[in-house]
Amino acid sequence: MFDHGPAVTTTPSILEEIVRPLAVCPTGIDKITITPVAFRDPALLNAVGVHQPFAIRSVIEVVTSDGLTGLGESYGDLAHLEQLRLVADAIVGLDVFSNNQMFVRAGAALRGVVGRDGHGLTGAISAAGTLLRAYSAFEVACLDVQGQLLARPVVDLLGGAVRTAVPFSAYLFYKWAAHPGEKPDAYGAALDPDSIVEQARWMVSQYGFTAIKLKGGVLTPRQEVDTIFALRDAFPAVPLRLDPNAAWTVATSIKVGQELAGVLEYLEDPTSGLSAMADVARQVAMPLATNMCVVGFEDVPTAIEQRSVGVILSDHHYWGGLRRVQELAAICDTFDLGLSMHSNSHLGISLAAMTHVAAAVPNLTYALDTHWPWKDQDVIADGSLTFKDGSVTVPTSPGLGVELDRDALDELHRQYLACGITTRSDTVYMRQFDPSFDARPARW
Amino acid sequence: MFDHGPAVTTTPSILEEIVRPLAVCPTGIDKITITPVAFRDPALLNAVGVHQPFAIRSVIEVVTSDGLTGLGESYGDLAHLEQLRLVADAIVGLDVFSNNQMFVRAGAALRGVVGRDGHGLTGAISAAGTLLRAYSAFEVACLDVQGQLLARPVVDLLGGAVRTAVPFSAYLFYKWAAHPGEKPDAYGAALDPDSIVEQARWMVSQYGFTAIKLKGGVLTPRQEVDTIFALRDAFPAVPLRLDPNAAWTVATSIKVGQELAGVLEYLEDPTSGLSAMADVARQVAMPLATNMCVVGFEDVPTAIEQRSVGVILSDHHYWGGLRRVQELAAICDTFDLGLSMHSNSHLGISLAAMTHVAAAVPNLTYALDTHWPWKDQDVIADGSLTFKDGSVTVPTSPGLGVELDRDALDELHRQYLACGITTRSDTVYMRQFDPSFDARPARW
Repeated sequence: MFDHGPAVTTTPSILEEIVRPLAVCPTGIDKITITPVAFRDPALLNAVGVHQPFAIRSVIEVVTSDGLTGLGESYGDLAHLEQLRLVADAIVGLDVFSNNQMFVRAGAALRGVVGRDGHGLTGAISAAGTLLRAYSAFEVACLDVQGQLLARPVVDLLGGAVRTAVPFSAYLFYKWAAHPGEKPDAYGAALDPDSIVEQARWMVSQYGFTAIKLKGGVLTPRQEVDTIFALRDAFPAVPLRLDPNAAWTVATSIKVGQELAGVLEYLEDPTSGLSAMADVARQVAMPLATNMCVVGFEDVPTAIEQRSVGVILSDHHYWGGLRRVQELAAICDTFDLGLSMHSNSHLGISLAAMTHVAAAVPNLTYALDTHWPWKDQDVIADGSLTFKDGSVTVPTSPGLGVELDRDALDELHRQYLACGITTRSDTVYMRQFDPSFDARPARW
Repeated sequence: MFDHGPAVTTTPSILEEIVRPLAVCPTGIDKITITPVAFRDPALLNAVGVHQPFAIRSVIEVVTSDGLTGLGESYGDLAHLEQLRLVADAIVGLDVFSNNQMFVRAGAALRGVVGRDGHGLTGAISAAGTLLRAYSAFEVACLDVQGQLLARPVVDLLGGAVRTAVPFSAYLFYKWAAHPGEKPDAYGAALDPDSIVEQARWMVSQYGFTAIKLKGGVLTPRQEVDTIFALRDAFPAVPLRLDPNAAWTVATSIKVGQELAGVLEYLEDPTSGLSAMADVARQVAMPLATNMCVVGFEDVPTAIEQRSVGVILSDHHYWGGLRRVQELAAICDTFDLGLSMHSNSHLGISLAAMTHVAAAVPNLTYALDTHWPWKDQDVIADGSLTFKDGSVTVPTSPGLGVELDRDALDELHRQYLACGITTRSDTVYMRQFDPSFDARPARW
C-alpha cells in the first residue's frame, strides 16, 4: 500500500492562511493512506472495447490526530495514484474542515499536471479537471470525518436531505458470457435485444430499479435501436436511456434520435464534441445528456452558449467532490439544464458518497447511474447500504455511514498487485481477442 | 416582538422527506423569534432620496429543543416581516441541519408571494427573489447553531477559510450634516469633492480601509467625476468604485465610464437594465458591477448572454443565504465574472455572516461593501468583530462568533416601535424637504 503517514506527518508545513494552529488541532490530518484495489469485473462491452477482468480503484483513508478515519474512493490508474499522492502530501497537517484550503494546496501541488481519464472514453483531461479529480476523494474523506465528529450523516453537511432514498437506474451492458478462458458469469452473454431484456428483467427483479440505461456504441445503431424498442415493450412505464459514448456521426445521431423520440428520456453522448452535440440537439426531441463533452466547469459556458446538451451528468469523482456537485447543480438550476449522475465501476464508499450528495440536491431528479450490480466484491462491510425499490436509503449514521472491511481491503489490494492492471484500457484488452478492433469515435 | 414559539411548536408537522423523527431530535427548531429593530442612520444621500433617521432591520433567533440559539439578520420592512413569519411558521419543528428542506417548505409557505426591495432602489422583486430573501436569515441562524453544536466557526461549515481576514471598502456618501432639525453628526455635510475626501480620510484613518466606494447618483455626473478625481489624487494607490444606482442614461454612463478609464476598479450600476448595461459595457474599459440588474439566479443567464456586467455583487440577504452565495461564486468562477459583495445598512449579525462566507470564497477578491461605519448602535456585544487594516478578522469561535446583547436588542426594538418607520422610503423622506425631488431612473 502507499502509506503517506510517516513521510509527511513529521513536519507538516503550515500555511499562513490556516486559521487554527495545527499543532494543537485534534482534527488535523495526521496521516493519509491510499490503497489501490482491484475487483472482479464482467466482460462488459462499450464503444472503446471491453472491461478488463478487474476494475481498479483507490481507497483513501484520512486519519486525524484524534484517530478518526474518513474514507474516500477514486480511480485506480497509476498516473492518478501519483496525483493523489501529491495532493495527500500537500494536505497532511491541515484541519479536516479546511477543504477550501486543501483545494488551493492541491492545485499548487499538482502545478498544472494534465492527466488522462484512465479508461479511454473521454481522453485527455485539462489541468483544471486533473485537479478536480485528484482533490475529490480527499474532500469526501474529510466530510466523512466531519460527520463523525458531529454525529451527523454527510448529507447534513450539505444542507440536509430532501429525500430519504435516492433512485438509481439499471445499467445494462452488451456483454460476453465471460472473459475469454473463464466460466460464464451469472448474467451470461448479452448481444441481442432478447438477452438485454432478460438482463434487465433480472436486474430489475433483484434491485427494483425504476429507470433503465443501456450502454451502446457496441452493435450497429440499428441493433441498438431495436434493443431499446424491445426494452420499451418489456418495460412500457420505465424511463429509458441510451449511451453510445460518442460512437456515432451527427447524421446517425439525428436519425437514431428521431426514431427514438418519445421513447428515451434522454440520449447520452451520441456523438463527440460540443458543436456536434449541438447539431444533434437541434434535430431531436429528447434532451441530450453528457458525461463526455461537459466534464468540468470550463466546458459549461460553451455548452450553454451552443445549447449542446439538456442534461449534465454529474460525478463527484471528476467534478471535484460533493460540494462542487452542488455547485454544478446550482448552475444547472440557473440555466434550466437537467442534472443526472454518471458512474464508473465503483465500490461502496463511492455509492455512499453519491447517495449523500444526491439526497441533498433538489434538482437531481433523474435516477443515478451505477455499475453496482456488476461487482461481487467490495471494501465496505455488508449491510451498510441497501437498495429498496431501486433506491438506496440515505444513511443516517454519522459520516458516510459505511465501514471499511479491512480483510476485504487487504484482499482487493492483493488482487490489485496480482492482476497486473495498472491502467484501465478496454481497447488494448479487446485487441487481444480482436486485433482489428477500431475504437475511433464515430464508427457509425 | 413577533414570537412564533407557542403557536407553532405544539404540533410541528412532519414532512415525509425528513430523515430523523423530529419528536426525538434535540436539534429540532423549537421556537423562532423575529424582532424588528431600528438604529440611528445619518442623512446619507442616494439616487432615490435620503436615508431616514432610522434604518430598520430584523433580528432572527432560532432556538433548538436543546436550548441553543442561532442568530440571523434581515430586512425590517413590514411586508418582509410578514414573509419571514410565514417561513418561520413553516420550518419550526425541522432539524437545524435540514436547510434544503427548509427552503422547500419556505417556498411552499410563500406560495409565489412577490415582495419589494424595501428601499426603492431595485423595485419589485420576483417570487424567486422573495423566497431567497425570506429564507436567508433562517439559514444563517441555523448555521450559527450548527457551528455551536460542532464547536466550529460557521466558515468551517462552508469548506473552511481561505483567508484569516476579509477586506472591506470605505463606503462614502454625499450627505447632509444632519437630519433636518437635528445636530450635525460626527461626519458633517459632504456635498462636494473636498468634503468627500475629508470623509474618506477620516474613515480610512479609523478603519484602515484599502478600497473606497462612492455612492453616486446624487450630484451631477460632472460633480461626481470630479469627486472621483479628487479621491484618486488623495488616495492614488487605493482602488475606487462609483455607484450612481442607475441614475444615468446610457450616453452619460459611457461618457463617464470613458473619462474614468484607468481610475475606477469598477463602475457599479451606471444605468438601468441588462440591455442598457450591456450597451455601456461595450464602450467602457472598466468592468461594470451590479446589484440592481442581477439580483437573483434568474437574471444570470441573460446577463451572461448579453455580457451586461463584469462583476456581480453578492449579498447573502437576497441571494438566499451563505451557501447560495457560494453557488453564485461558482457561477462567477465558471463564467469568468468577478465577484464582490453588496451592503445595505446592517448590524453586527450580518457583518459576521458576510465575513464568514467571504472567508470561504476564494474568488471573492474585491473588498466587500459595508455601511458599518455609519451606525453607532448595534444588537451584538462589543468586541466580537474587529476591523484591522480595513479587514474584519474571521471569527474562530463557534458559530457566527457574535453574541446578542439583549439590552441593546430591547432598546433597538423600542426604537423601532417609537420611530414609526415600517417601510424604508428614502424618496418619501426626501420629499418632506424637497417636494420636487424626482427619483426616476436616468435623471442624467
